[in-house]
Amino acid sequence: MHLSNTKRKILRTSLELFNQSGTKVISTNHIAEACSMSPGNLYYHYKNKEHIILALLEKMIAKWDKLDESEEPLTLIEQSERTFSCVWEYRFLHRELVVLFHADNAFASLCSSTLKRRLQEVLGVLEGMEQQGFLKPADATSKDFLSHTLLFMALFWMPYLEVTGQVDSEENIKHGAHMMMQLVSPYMSEGNHV
Amino acid sequence: MHLSNTKRKILRTSLELFNQSGTKVISTNHIAEACSMSPGNLYYHYKNKEHIILALLEKMIAKWDKLDESEEPLTLIEQSERTFSCVWEYRFLHRELVVLFHADNAFASLCSSTLKRRLQEVLGVLEGMEQQGFLKPADATSKDFLSHTLLFMALFWMPYLEVTGQVDSEENIKHGAHMMMQLVSPYMSEGNHV
Repeated sequence: MHLSNTKRKILRTSLELFNQSGTKVISTNHIAEACSMSPGNLYYHYKNKEHIILALLEKMIAKWDKLDESEEPLTLIEQSERTFSCVWEYRFLHRELVVLFHADNAFASLCSSTLKRRLQEVLGVLEGMEQQGFLKPADATSKDFLSHTLLFMALFWMPYLEVTGQVDSEENIKHGAHMMMQLVSPYMSEGNHV
Repeated sequence: MHLSNTKRKILRTSLELFNQSGTKVISTNHIAEACSMSPGNLYYHYKNKEHIILALLEKMIAKWDKLDESEEPLTLIEQSERTFSCVWEYRFLHRELVVLFHADNAFASLCSSTLKRRLQEVLGVLEGMEQQGFLKPADATSKDFLSHTLLFMALFWMPYLEVTGQVDSEENIKHGAHMMMQLVSPYMSEGNHV
């Protein structure tokens, strides 16, 4: 994604405001004001709030795609922690995921197709761990359960912490990585329990 | 909760409309119209949309509290299926949970205190299963993990199915009960695997 400086500024400001107050409260006028530009100038770059939200979803997906880029191979817990950092950075998207999904067809379509891809990626990581002997040989039902539940945790653990009134902060969210390890633990080979 | 017939009608109609279209789209005028009453009459019973949403949350909590009422003791899968039926009945509350939580302090407060209680109830069920020998003796970390993850699944499995583009229906949601069984399975005593 190649974005102009102005577009980057609009997205950075919108992300901050949406994370603070949610997309229902924040209008394009609020965003224009916080960017010190006229509503007309903002409109030239993004036609409406839905376009800004969709562009932020695309940015998050692009970031998530690069999470496993590293000189050294990452452990599962390092990958999980990076995932939760990304969730925290784009936390309004996770708080409002289902509402945004039902409100905008373009958002829903990109969301569904990306999550189908993520599920295959998680399954690939599990199969890699199985081949390397970290996981005990597992049947299709177990791998299906683990991959869905890992993706489920990545998407909704942050919202869960919020509605159960647990303190939310980036450090706190990363505790989700430990929940993922606990989930996988019974399926690890002897000597590889986390 | 003792409600007048009119209040019951308002809540039943609101639930149907919120489940169909979400709380953002549905106004008190829509609800009044669907109830064949004037906005003034609706206002006499509920001051605003937030009061209606809060009353629906209270109704769901009251229903959930009675889920384990049964002549015969319920199995864990029966309890889970009843939970998911209740989630499906009040699905707008689960779709919009985090957004409603951040929008209204009274909602947030009732939500947090109820979920703290639910967590203790789930822990109680697990400890009962341990005492009866269905679960292997488990350490505090495992029971903490299992109780949080079971509650987490109850709350967010339905939203997860929606955003991953899987068909959603009451039957489909009940598949969540099988995910719960899979989760608990490695912790069951020999011969009690599900």
